Amino acid sequence: MRIGLYPGTFDPITFGHLDIISRAVTLVDKLVIGVAVNNAKGPLFSIDERVALVEQETAAFSKNAVIEVKPFDNLLIHFAETCGANTIVRGLRAVSDFEYEFQMVAMNQKMNDTIETVFLMADPQHQAVSSRLVKEIARLDGNIDAFVPDGVSRQLYTKYGKTK
Amino acid sequence: MRIGLYPGTFDPITFGHLDIISRAVTLVDKLVIGVAVNNAKGPLFSIDERVALVEQETAAFSKNAVIEVKPFDNLLIHFAETCGANTIVRGLRAVSDFEYEFQMVAMNQKMNDTIETVFLMADPQHQAVSSRLVKEIARLDGNIDAFVPDGVSRQLYTKYGKTK
Amino acid sequence: MRIGLYPGTFDPITFGHLDIISRAVTLVDKLVIGVAVNNAKGPLFSIDERVALVEQETAAFSKNAVIEVKPFDNLLIHFAETCGANTIVRGLRAVSDFEYEFQMVAMNQKMNDTIETVFLMADPQHQAVSSRLVKEIARLDGNIDAFVPDGVSRQLYTKYGKTK
Amino acid sequence: MRIGLYPGTFDPITFGHLDIISRAVTLVDKLVIGVAVNNAKGPLFSIDERVALVEQETAAFSKNAVIEVKPFDNLLIHFAETCGANTIVRGLRAVSDFEYEFQMVAMNQKMNDTIETVFLMADPQHQAVSSRLVKEIARLDGNIDAFVPDGVSRQLYTKYGKTK
Amino acid sequence: MRIGLYPGTFDPITFGHLDIISRAVTLVDKLVIGVAVNNAKGPLFSIDERVALVEQETAAFSKNAVIEVKPFDNLLIHFAETCGANTIVRGLRAVSDFEYEFQMVAMNQKMNDTIETVFLMADPQHQAVSSRLVKEIARLDGNIDAFVPDGVSRQLYTKYGKTK
Amino acid sequence: MRIGLYPGTFDPITFGHLDIISRAVTLVDKLVIGVAVNNAKGPLFSIDERVALVEQETAAFSKNAVIEVKPFDNLLIHFAETCGANTIVRGLRAVSDFEYEFQMVAMNQKMNDTIETVFLMADPQHQAVSSRLVKEIARLDGNIDAFVPDGVSRQLYTKYGKTK
Repeated sequence: MRIGLYPGTFDPITFGHLDIISRAVTLVDKLVIGVAVNNAKGPLFSIDERVALVEQETAAFSKNAVIEVKPFDNLLIHFAETCGANTIVRGLRAVSDFEYEFQMVAMNQKMNDTIETVFLMADPQHQAVSSRLVKEIARLDGNIDAFVPDGVSRQLYTKYGKTK
Repeated sequence: MRIGLYPGTFDPITFGHLDIISRAVTLVDKLVIGVAVNNAKGPLFSIDERVALVEQETAAFSKNAVIEVKPFDNLLIHFAETCGANTIVRGLRAVSDFEYEFQMVAMNQKMNDTIETVFLMADPQHQAVSSRLVKEIARLDGNIDAFVPDGVSRQLYTKYGKTK
Repeated sequence: MRIGLYPGTFDPITFGHLDIISRAVTLVDKLVIGVAVNNAKGPLFSIDERVALVEQETAAFSKNAVIEVKPFDNLLIHFAETCGANTIVRGLRAVSDFEYEFQMVAMNQKMNDTIETVFLMADPQHQAVSSRLVKEIARLDGNIDAFVPDGVSRQLYTKYGKTK
Repeated sequence: MRIGLYPGTFDPITFGHLDIISRAVTLVDKLVIGVAVNNAKGPLFSIDERVALVEQETAAFSKNAVIEVKPFDNLLIHFAETCGANTIVRGLRAVSDFEYEFQMVAMNQKMNDTIETVFLMADPQHQAVSSRLVKEIARLDGNIDAFVPDGVSRQLYTKYGKTK
Repeated sequence: MRIGLYPGTFDPITFGHLDIISRAVTLVDKLVIGVAVNNAKGPLFSIDERVALVEQETAAFSKNAVIEVKPFDNLLIHFAETCGANTIVRGLRAVSDFEYEFQMVAMNQKMNDTIETVFLMADPQHQAVSSRLVKEIARLDGNIDAFVPDGVSRQLYTKYGKTK
Repeated sequence: MRIGLYPGTFDPITFGHLDIISRAVTLVDKLVIGVAVNNAKGPLFSIDERVALVEQETAAFSKNAVIEVKPFDNLLIHFAETCGANTIVRGLRAVSDFEYEFQMVAMNQKMNDTIETVFLMADPQHQAVSSRLVKEIARLDGNIDAFVPDGVSRQLYTKYGKTK
């Protein structure tokens, strides 16, 4: 059985993440979506909220592969080992992503070279979407319908004390 | 009438910004210089000080176009709409700028595709100048005459309790 | 009167070029589309064919600005001077574009610093489209409907002895 | 059954290619290595020689997945369809690779969005190796033992009329 | 006498830094390793600990050049002047490094154009190593033997209350 | 004695090259300027003409270091060994340079890791200058005074049958 791990902070999940997930499920039998706790970064949504939003928005993909959403707080390569993952899935958007990813892959290969990192590219329409900018736009009353699903945008506006 | 908006934090305005402004005034009838309040970033100069420095240093360009300096604290694309801007003007300095700008433009196009973002390149001599590095150099007693106008450097040294 | 020059080889014109032109016409009163003769590159379409295709596909934009399509075979900055252009318009797609453009702008600024180069970004859906790849795909019987207008694809298939 | 296609010119196959293949075989049940005929590029080795070298050097991987080496001369996405491939495998080495690949993936997605392109990164020691530079070094009597397998280097020196 | 300055935060020193130092000592008669105090960044190791670790790990290079390890808290170009340095040595790892370095060099050239900045590239195996990631891995119980010398990893684990 | 090798095609030498040479002579006791014969590239100036132009324009630097100008037609690392060079000097201008250089350095390190490649950055005003563009501008009657010395521009115009 091929098991993939797609890690991220998902604060919150966007159409960019969902595009990558829709591609990843064709490559593996089971996809673990790992939600990094990342308290140091001061996420807007709690770990439980983020896991719940990811579960809600990715339920439809379970017809293509087994989907598991799990929080994690340890070293990515250790978490991948615990999941029995053969591959770590990453989305590539831009050159700066690429550089950081290059560094991470090179270091991960030194720690465990049996787990491959595979990179996928989202549809260009979704590549520019970043959770950070989506939050900024929502906070300043901008329209985020093109960037996140409806269920996410409602909760995002609620966080900022606005009604959609 | 063509109206351009040149947004930034201008903490403080540098020769790099002034180079871009000198080019932008040839493209539009009126140039609004939008000074982002950005309190979260903890700017060195208050919003009033930054607006005043920008006004003082850009007065000479009013022979080429109407110049307006305005603070703003809302979403850039909303502020552009309020100004009646047809274009948003940005300076390009480096590949990393380019990536971030690409992301912003793609998201702005989704929100309002009637306002164009146009990119200009400063003279190579001014491209490397960044407000952040200028402040660091001033704080550590370095010479900043090549990076900011005289009126700015005097106020910058004063902020750090030094005399020029 | 603001006059812009949008130069290229246009061998042939693509949706990427048309996206940039649709943005450029909002910035100027007259847009000259300069078609570089470029015989050294061995273009697929003759200069007359390329000019004709550009005229045919850009006719609709003449409601926004005066459109002129002109071949040119001299130095870009000299051609811009002849056109009375205030600005040269360029599309930015990728980091490698950016580097080459940086070099060109810096050299053009040394030759004539009164003509500004302004960069625009196409919609992400059109950024990846390149004339070179479109020709390769057409030559190998691929479907190019997403990359060039119908009138262009018909002529492209004809060049390669295929029927659409 | 998951089928991957790893396309290239392989003129000749290097340790960089072999590193990617060693990773790709863990992701799929069958890996088709597609050798592009590419006569326009004037390859040093004939298509038959290149196929034979790839077969010889990749034989050992058949314990991990079914390996098929096939020449191709048509559009990559069409060849992938003929092979029944679910994924196209590409190695990423550098930013400039990334940009070109981004363009290709975006265009391929428009033609057939059911075949995913996945990117893998070679061990840093092998990332810098390029067939073009290896040939240049061999032609100029340099030592290429660190870049290609023994069987390849012998044939490469023979091509240039040298003995190893 | 040629004097080089290799500045950094060294929090802590890694195999990447040591690779650059091993190359720098062949270029100069004396190499000053400048340890930036950088309290604003909240370093894990105190300035005294960092200086001691650098001294301990670079002692072996003193057979190639005079090695001096010195803390500094002023402007880099001023510190270079104080050291009598002719050159500032920097390691290049990635495009994003390059951009930042470009900016720094351009600004330093304006302040003192008699001190050259020279860039060296580490062995690819060591390029991906960053102090920040090494600390993150150690904190999360990962194995850092491939990234830092033994003496450093022992102290790093101690900092995080672990035993090696 | 420290010996540096600065290799290039120098077809023809530009202010960009001269800027790098002016910096390199402060790092070494002797600088060999290696002029690559490169007949495959179809240089405009013959190897003898290029060597003569380099000698003429670099004569003034001999007060800082011994200058030797030599043609070469073999592998760069072998030529460096023949010269007794400890370092190979390269100018960095742009990200795309950086990537290619990265590849070259990594391969050279595998062949001879005792010769260091050091990178220098030219003054921003000279970074954009490339021999290829200078020739293109001269051929099309543009003004190249900002890019090459007087002695070079005269010969360049003569090549293209023009008078300065």
